[in-house]
Amino acid sequence: MPEQDKPIVTVDVVLLTLREESLHVALARREHEPHAGAWTLPGGWVHTDEDDDALAAAVRILKAKAGLESPYLEQLKTFASRHRDGRGWSVSIAHYALAPFDRAISESIEWRAVDAIRTLPFDHLEILHTAVERVRSKTGYSSLPVHLMPATFTLSELQRVYEQVLGTQLDKRTFRRRIEELDLVEPAAGARNEGAAHRPAQHYRVKRRFGRELALSDRTLG
Amino acid sequence: MPEQDKPIVTVDVVLLTLREESLHVALARREHEPHAGAWTLPGGWVHTDEDDDALAAAVRILKAKAGLESPYLEQLKTFASRHRDGRGWSVSIAHYALAPFDRAISESIEWRAVDAIRTLPFDHLEILHTAVERVRSKTGYSSLPVHLMPATFTLSELQRVYEQVLGTQLDKRTFRRRIEELDLVEPAAGARNEGAAHRPAQHYRVKRRFGRELALSDRTLG
Repeated sequence: MPEQDKPIVTVDVVLLTLREESLHVALARREHEPHAGAWTLPGGWVHTDEDDDALAAAVRILKAKAGLESPYLEQLKTFASRHRDGRGWSVSIAHYALAPFDRAISESIEWRAVDAIRTLPFDHLEILHTAVERVRSKTGYSSLPVHLMPATFTLSELQRVYEQVLGTQLDKRTFRRRIEELDLVEPAAGARNEGAAHRPAQHYRVKRRFGRELALSDRTLG
Repeated sequence: MPEQDKPIVTVDVVLLTLREESLHVALARREHEPHAGAWTLPGGWVHTDEDDDALAAAVRILKAKAGLESPYLEQLKTFASRHRDGRGWSVSIAHYALAPFDRAISESIEWRAVDAIRTLPFDHLEILHTAVERVRSKTGYSSLPVHLMPATFTLSELQRVYEQVLGTQLDKRTFRRRIEELDLVEPAAGARNEGAAHRPAQHYRVKRRFGRELALSDRTLG
């Protein structure tokens, strides 16, 4: 393959969180041309001397640009064409990541409400929309949103997060039955506030085995 | 990005069909080193002067190597690491395609039963397994297998194809109810053999709008 025919290869990451009841995405300020100074999805070239694979590049970028270690991280889709970057034929192996808001605080990124973003450089708006669609679609039948939760939470809080991601209300009984079928959570010891006047809600945590993989239901969670 | 740090970028295609009641994959003989003469997934470098995007590269490869035009074709996943190709850091933007057996006959490819393949060069066995898993998982709740069907077919034939892809038997009544919910097929005029002694089965064809996109059910098809 002649060197001049090799495309540019980058990894971009759509890092999503829930904040003020709506999905927010992390944007980073670009240091170099093109679009120097603009806010874009955090990303960068693959470092062939350093990154073992594309996932390792995404982990490196998340740590360097968002100060974030081991969030839920998955490959999204690859955007590869001659039109997406003025410098020539280029490949973005796009990933998406989910993290609770308090775990993803960094001075070098800015959080923007997904629904308020009208434009982004390159094809980053298309990448962002693809990620949000993927997360919403998986949310309907999987454990994906647990990666947005704090360490412990009530079932009502869990349902509220599913509803915020989906943008719709869910039936409480159906939701609880599906969560039970997914075998997703376990009671968190000590989190129950025993002495209160009203019987307080039980607190739960995500079962350890869901730290990395998804539980899938064959029905929607509504 | 220094030229020597740019990864190799290829597109590989997992072309699947049903033959003798089981999933078969198309393999092509490699012309160049490494692995010259070996059977691998059809693929090749992105042609930055010719291909508009990765999908266009996959279309070009399918046409050149399998003589196949406009099958169902979708991006699968990108395999990108320093270990997958002895020539250095390399990227395969893998795609998968489905076609009825009679539409995909070419002298330059060989069909192998997926379950009988034990080894393939590079990481092509992993790419193949990822594609088969994706097709089986989508088959459970979508119209995907219609792309393996001939122009017209009976509902029993359609169910049999779903069963062959999934490797399990399906309940006839549930299957037909789901197919109806998906609003997938319409009666094919003239295909019904009116004069026969036993009332013959109605023939159907896939509704035109499913030529390119999938219908999704929120329940499994079983």
